[in-house]
Amino acid sequence: MKHPAINPTREQDYASWYLEVIKAADLAQHSPVRGCMIIKPWGYALWENMQKILDQRFKKLGHQNIYLPMFIPLSFFNKEAEHVTGFAKECAIVTHHQLVEDQEKGLVPGGELEEPLVVRPTSEALFGYVFKQWIASYRDLPMCLNQWANVVRWEMRTRMFLRTSEFLWQEGHTAHASAQEADDHAKMMLETYRWFAEHILAIPVICGEKTENERFGGADKTYTIEAMMQDGKALQAGTSHYLGQNFSKAFEVTFQNKNNEPEHVYNTSWGVTTRMIGALIMTHGDDDGLRLPPGIAPYQVVVLPIHKNGISQPELDQYAFRIQQTLESFAFDGQCLRVHIDNRDLSGGEKSWSWYKKGVPIRIEIGQRELDEQKICLVMRTEGYKARRFLSIDAIFDVVALLDQIQTSLWNEAKQRMDVNTVALSSQTEIEQYFAQDGCRGFVKAHFGLSKHAESQWCKMHGVTVRCQLPESPQGPCFVSGKMAPLVILARAY
Amino acid sequence: MKHPAINPTREQDYASWYLEVIKAADLAQHSPVRGCMIIKPWGYALWENMQKILDQRFKKLGHQNIYLPMFIPLSFFNKEAEHVTGFAKECAIVTHHQLVEDQEKGLVPGGELEEPLVVRPTSEALFGYVFKQWIASYRDLPMCLNQWANVVRWEMRTRMFLRTSEFLWQEGHTAHASAQEADDHAKMMLETYRWFAEHILAIPVICGEKTENERFGGADKTYTIEAMMQDGKALQAGTSHYLGQNFSKAFEVTFQNKNNEPEHVYNTSWGVTTRMIGALIMTHGDDDGLRLPPGIAPYQVVVLPIHKNGISQPELDQYAFRIQQTLESFAFDGQCLRVHIDNRDLSGGEKSWSWYKKGVPIRIEIGQRELDEQKICLVMRTEGYKARRFLSIDAIFDVVALLDQIQTSLWNEAKQRMDVNTVALSSQTEIEQYFAQDGCRGFVKAHFGLSKHAESQWCKMHGVTVRCQLPESPQGPCFVSGKMAPLVILARAY
Repeated sequence: MKHPAINPTREQDYASWYLEVIKAADLAQHSPVRGCMIIKPWGYALWENMQKILDQRFKKLGHQNIYLPMFIPLSFFNKEAEHVTGFAKECAIVTHHQLVEDQEKGLVPGGELEEPLVVRPTSEALFGYVFKQWIASYRDLPMCLNQWANVVRWEMRTRMFLRTSEFLWQEGHTAHASAQEADDHAKMMLETYRWFAEHILAIPVICGEKTENERFGGADKTYTIEAMMQDGKALQAGTSHYLGQNFSKAFEVTFQNKNNEPEHVYNTSWGVTTRMIGALIMTHGDDDGLRLPPGIAPYQVVVLPIHKNGISQPELDQYAFRIQQTLESFAFDGQCLRVHIDNRDLSGGEKSWSWYKKGVPIRIEIGQRELDEQKICLVMRTEGYKARRFLSIDAIFDVVALLDQIQTSLWNEAKQRMDVNTVALSSQTEIEQYFAQDGCRGFVKAHFGLSKHAESQWCKMHGVTVRCQLPESPQGPCFVSGKMAPLVILARAY
Repeated sequence: MKHPAINPTREQDYASWYLEVIKAADLAQHSPVRGCMIIKPWGYALWENMQKILDQRFKKLGHQNIYLPMFIPLSFFNKEAEHVTGFAKECAIVTHHQLVEDQEKGLVPGGELEEPLVVRPTSEALFGYVFKQWIASYRDLPMCLNQWANVVRWEMRTRMFLRTSEFLWQEGHTAHASAQEADDHAKMMLETYRWFAEHILAIPVICGEKTENERFGGADKTYTIEAMMQDGKALQAGTSHYLGQNFSKAFEVTFQNKNNEPEHVYNTSWGVTTRMIGALIMTHGDDDGLRLPPGIAPYQVVVLPIHKNGISQPELDQYAFRIQQTLESFAFDGQCLRVHIDNRDLSGGEKSWSWYKKGVPIRIEIGQRELDEQKICLVMRTEGYKARRFLSIDAIFDVVALLDQIQTSLWNEAKQRMDVNTVALSSQTEIEQYFAQDGCRGFVKAHFGLSKHAESQWCKMHGVTVRCQLPESPQGPCFVSGKMAPLVILARAY
């Protein structure tokens, strides 16, 4: 129990701090498989909550879940040229279907497949196959599908949650009768992601559209939510694509329209991944570990009975149980409070310290004194480890209000940080100087609009990417070319 | 709308009937990947309900979910000899991590991996790795973990839901401080599966233990629940394994016991899969399609507003909405009723017929007449397509009772079928004659206890397997050897 709990601190070494928080909060660890992680119970519980909340929302918006094979025949993968280019360099490929004994080497792959199979990096190809079979007329549209799945992209440099060879995600795929409807749908799903990031995770984001360079392979438009991490770098937290007719032409997906003519459908796809957990850590974590917004915390309140000399007291357990029961009758964000009693055979200090590092919003400690006086000792994660409040037991009726307060204070802190560290600059010199600084911590808003190649060159030279264009803002002169150009967000990025 | 809806009927060709029900109820279809299926919305909704109910139960019993990589390094897979033997012949193996352009062949696998990766057929190996890292002392035990995942077994003969190359499942893995505790845990999880199959799915099962021949590779004991399909064949619906110290020795998983000595942990593992959906179809389906027990039905009630001449009437929609709202305030098995209004642009006949084939327990049809007279037309799936009941609107308060009645009648039908078709036989001649019949429809209870090899030989000769031993029953003379032997269930099986 030494403050700060995380060594190094954010100031000292942000990248190492991140990995240490994952360790201290017991979220995940490296696995023996290159670039793949093991998601531990506390980390997986975060993902389960994310799934639950998003899944409900998707279904409300008319989507149905399905499950497609994780293997894609090589020939399928090859139908949309840009799509293939986007993924060919980082695919896991299954070539054999047996293990056979080799006298020298032991077990080796045997039974070569006629056609190699690609482990899905994304499933546009198989959804194309499905749409072709399931869609006949405009009456079948819109067709709104989603799948929760694991995907593999053989990344060269991996970092837990942010970029792993295998990751978990949802991928929504829809087909529509008109370009407008499909584009609107893609925007609606981006809005869903914004709501989720901001309202549930308390992570402020900027919504916009990717430039051609940063677009998803095979998309006509890619919309994105971009969050700012505490080191000022951008993190793409979710994307939604308007695919036009690119995939419907590649996979021959047509429908009979109202004029009784065959027409290619218009598609969207959109996804968020376990990367969201990385965003959560890097937005709200502090030098003592994780801090969780109540909206997503696996437990919003932990009750710690502190037994004197480690001897169990039934009265204290009953007191804890009564607190839990009362709290579980309350709701936060429409759901019953998630309350846990920690009865592990550990010292009070060890227990409270572990929950502190895991980021539980509120912990309630109770011992002999609290029992005798019908009090509780309440600590909010946002107020520091020792900021104990000795309160009457009736204070548990204020817990929902306190959780609201924590949700708001985490949001405010992150929002203010993003606002303060987003600067509007207009001259090329200023902008290049900004990104030449060592400690440049933030987003630059500027008018920027070059050719694909020129944008790419300028960005590479300055180690910066265009995070998104802000289509709602008026255009202005590009800081490089002087031509009228959209307003964009420039930043270093994860 | 031609009765029977399924062609061929069960009597005519049970195997084809099964596939036709899957089609008619819109549960799944074949995919372009050999042996892998596409699970459609109605089929996936069944799996989601199974997940939800089991997951809650597992958590109540103290399990936590985690996620492990789907790739297992070949070297890991090789540590437990019997385990490897069990799976080596049917593994998908990743050998490359890129696609590269070949001038003649187009895209081909590139970037060969140093060590091939096996796509998990099950995860004992990686759980072994995890236990080794996470367990130090008896205080860390029991450690009860579970994962929901996709797995791959390269089956030669596949059949939708029953046996597919990729399937979805949960795999629980636990570690304990004593053999007794671990064995008890394995039995407890089997009991959980029995409860789920019988209480939720209305599928009667026989619980027992596998003989050595049928045991999971690497297990000391395999417990199983065996269900009887309508053709009299057995289906293994879930298994739970007591692994002893086999994996803890292979993966060096030790703990400091209470005497402060290092000791290998005792493990269990247990799983159910999307095969449960196959069991559901083959237990309750009839010649008109699927019949779903309310306990698992994605919608328990479907409300069909039948608009006159296809012209939408707002009053009828409101009437439907009011019925839905009222029903959703009721609970079945502790959960709010799942009620759907079908407002598709289809004729009333097409709509009701589609829900009939999908097996929705109750459909409520309302048209002008029902609206005017404040009545409903209620049809129960178990009573035939045309068994309409014209009831006062107040009858919706009886819907929960009717659902109970459907759950019970499906159970009774299945239970009676299993009881009637389970015969106790004692002489070898009788038993061999029973299985020589063409129409042998059922289970034989008999005393049977040969050596591993002799059992295997007898079974192969008669096309029969030992489904399980019934350890609670008294022993008797083996019908082959005459030596005292346990009572077993013999049957043909899926």
